[in-house]
Amino acid sequence: MFVMSSPSGAGKTTLSRRLLDAEKNITMSISVTTRKPRPGEVDGEDYHFLSKERFDHMVARKDLLEWATVFGNSYGTPKAPVEAALAAGRDVLFDIDWQGTQQLAQAMEDDLVRVFILPPDADTLRTRLISRNQDTSAVVAKRMAEAPREISHWAEYDYVIINEDFDVAHEEVLAILKAERLKRKRQVGLTDFVRKMTAKL
Amino acid sequence: MFVMSSPSGAGKTTLSRRLLDAEKNITMSISVTTRKPRPGEVDGEDYHFLSKERFDHMVARKDLLEWATVFGNSYGTPKAPVEAALAAGRDVLFDIDWQGTQQLAQAMEDDLVRVFILPPDADTLRTRLISRNQDTSAVVAKRMAEAPREISHWAEYDYVIINEDFDVAHEEVLAILKAERLKRKRQVGLTDFVRKMTAKL
Repeated sequence: MFVMSSPSGAGKTTLSRRLLDAEKNITMSISVTTRKPRPGEVDGEDYHFLSKERFDHMVARKDLLEWATVFGNSYGTPKAPVEAALAAGRDVLFDIDWQGTQQLAQAMEDDLVRVFILPPDADTLRTRLISRNQDTSAVVAKRMAEAPREISHWAEYDYVIINEDFDVAHEEVLAILKAERLKRKRQVGLTDFVRKMTAKL
Repeated sequence: MFVMSSPSGAGKTTLSRRLLDAEKNITMSISVTTRKPRPGEVDGEDYHFLSKERFDHMVARKDLLEWATVFGNSYGTPKAPVEAALAAGRDVLFDIDWQGTQQLAQAMEDDLVRVFILPPDADTLRTRLISRNQDTSAVVAKRMAEAPREISHWAEYDYVIINEDFDVAHEEVLAILKAERLKRKRQVGLTDFVRKMTAKL
């Protein structure tokens, strides 16, 4: 379970897409949300867009691994697709905020790899938020105002990437994923592998 | 402090050399040993070759971070060059066995990244030991006999690489080093960086 968090505009969404393009054995966890789609967003790809009632129903049925309300909109991670992917031996990528990460960590600390993406400086964050042209200037101002609170949680993550150059940051994301897969405790079957080899020595 | 261990013939020495070629900010820790140089080995590059008396003197003066006796020969890691490299902000690579790794871990667990290199199977290990032509057949037989004991310590390491293809294994070593450098706890100065950026938001 590979979590990437960052303040809006630090490049998390772009880095997530590039990771999914580069790595075939990782599946994106698609969140549910009660907020309205932004221009270009596709239901079932970017998010599952739900009514407030359906969202509350999922919360009540414990169908969400984590959920939170941000800027008056609710976001959550459906449990079933994550469990199906993990059972099939696939990694799962989560593009969630610090609140969701804390809830996931409580549920399954050992499985979690947490990566925090920081912008190189405040001006770059502002420029990226403005240039993506998705939001009104009021929303950009609100996201800038929210950034310090999101950034304040950087120390709860295992890895920190300073995203100055997207190509460098992408390579860093790939290295973290590759290294985590090489961790002894994540390599299923190693005990058997070693036992069989040692028997032939 | 980046440790690579493996049974003789699994490819540790080749992978160490390729890592040193690829990464300029890592320094090899050159061990001291009382064993005789093999053909082609250079004093001060492969090892510092010492008399038994000088080795015992270093042990007595606590000049070694770890030491052990294997096949009747003693091996150790001089403390001074490691401390100098770390103080200069450089990583240090250790090509040592499980005994040395255990001693290093006792001294400085948090700083240590431990990688165990396994051969893909028993036949490959045998073939590699024979084909390097450094040892008499008696020594090859002794190293094969010793392999199960070294391999039995694989579970004391943080990462395990199965070295079937040297190019793939080399990329895996690089990914582990890159990812470890991105770990929050290893990034010195991040607290200051975040504080300064947040002040400008």
